[in-house]
Amino acid sequence: MPPVVTFVGKPDSGKTTLLEKLIPVLNRRGCRVGTIKHHVHRFEMDKPGKDTFRHKQAGARVVALSSPTGLGVISDTDGDSDVEYLAARYFGDVDLVIAEGYKRLALPKVEVYRSALYPEPLAGRDETWVAMVSDSQAASAGLPWFSLDDCEGLASFLIETFIGPRVPVAGGRTTLIVDGAPIPLNAFVEGFLRRSLIGMTSSLKGCRNPKDITITITHDHADD
Amino acid sequence: MPPVVTFVGKPDSGKTTLLEKLIPVLNRRGCRVGTIKHHVHRFEMDKPGKDTFRHKQAGARVVALSSPTGLGVISDTDGDSDVEYLAARYFGDVDLVIAEGYKRLALPKVEVYRSALYPEPLAGRDETWVAMVSDSQAASAGLPWFSLDDCEGLASFLIETFIGPRVPVAGGRTTLIVDGAPIPLNAFVEGFLRRSLIGMTSSLKGCRNPKDITITITHDHADD
Repeated sequence: MPPVVTFVGKPDSGKTTLLEKLIPVLNRRGCRVGTIKHHVHRFEMDKPGKDTFRHKQAGARVVALSSPTGLGVISDTDGDSDVEYLAARYFGDVDLVIAEGYKRLALPKVEVYRSALYPEPLAGRDETWVAMVSDSQAASAGLPWFSLDDCEGLASFLIETFIGPRVPVAGGRTTLIVDGAPIPLNAFVEGFLRRSLIGMTSSLKGCRNPKDITITITHDHADD
Repeated sequence: MPPVVTFVGKPDSGKTTLLEKLIPVLNRRGCRVGTIKHHVHRFEMDKPGKDTFRHKQAGARVVALSSPTGLGVISDTDGDSDVEYLAARYFGDVDLVIAEGYKRLALPKVEVYRSALYPEPLAGRDETWVAMVSDSQAASAGLPWFSLDDCEGLASFLIETFIGPRVPVAGGRTTLIVDGAPIPLNAFVEGFLRRSLIGMTSSLKGCRNPKDITITITHDHADD
């Protein structure tokens, strides 16, 4: 699962504008980025009139638009999705996931703050805050501080903090999600699961020297 | 993996209009539907100006919009996605996947044909054609035929053909995807993988009596 950092801040503080400048800088440094936007209102992503939009309106639970360069999937959900579940399930091929919002979750947070708009940064700052990006260093609250224009500095900080120190995992990575929640795996369990599964599947046709394996299991406990 | 059927036909034959009427009928019969639309041109799904659109434009490889009622994920891809891979990966909780297009794949096909617009149905009809929906029974080509208005009849046919006869799997289901391709599993291998994985993970915290398990493995063969 890639590391997740979330950008928080009061409305109109410029989170999306900052991300628009930051993402290309991260890309130039070789860092593939994914983003997660949290939306509390009615969900709307597709373009009215498009076929997929019409399928969804008609009652399809999941619609996918697939092309040689991109894939879009829009699904109904029965409640909010766990951010770490999303990161593990959909962001396998990025180096860093940047979320917007999710102030209440225990994710590392970068606050975007404009003293020109608000007298104070967000209330409730705790140990999950890792940096401040603002128009005034006076509001840095003792945290690493970056000006709203310093995307190069912010990119360096994010890479160092979240990507640099990750020890490359010898052999591979395994992500386990049970009933929608990611399960933490220590190195022993990770290696045990990975080697066992590669062993168990290796005699099946099409499974020689696999690079990526995904297994999903639905279990109804009827034959326990 | 849910069954996949694809709707094919010449341009403007009314595939999407038919699906708009068919999906609610299937839903009323208790059949959850997902759709896959194939797009050969440049990919476009989000609304210009939305935050997720701006993230994507800025160079994010994957963007997700998550709300309590829905989830949208738009990703860059390195080539066309396999339809069966999409069905296995993203359509786990639907009963039937309806695709549009994919005329060249060996998927079961329903052709939508308007004799008022074209002198002939599609060329190249083969044994993957399972039904004709058209304004003229004369063009049924010996296949089960439904008029463009007969969504009730078409829904019954689809449920009977693709969902009805499926024997409920005792114990559960397992989907295995290796390097992007679904691997067929016979009942013995399915049960072996499922029971082994449930056993291997059962002592981990959060894994007691799991209903759904997803494991993804990235293997670099460095420690083989």
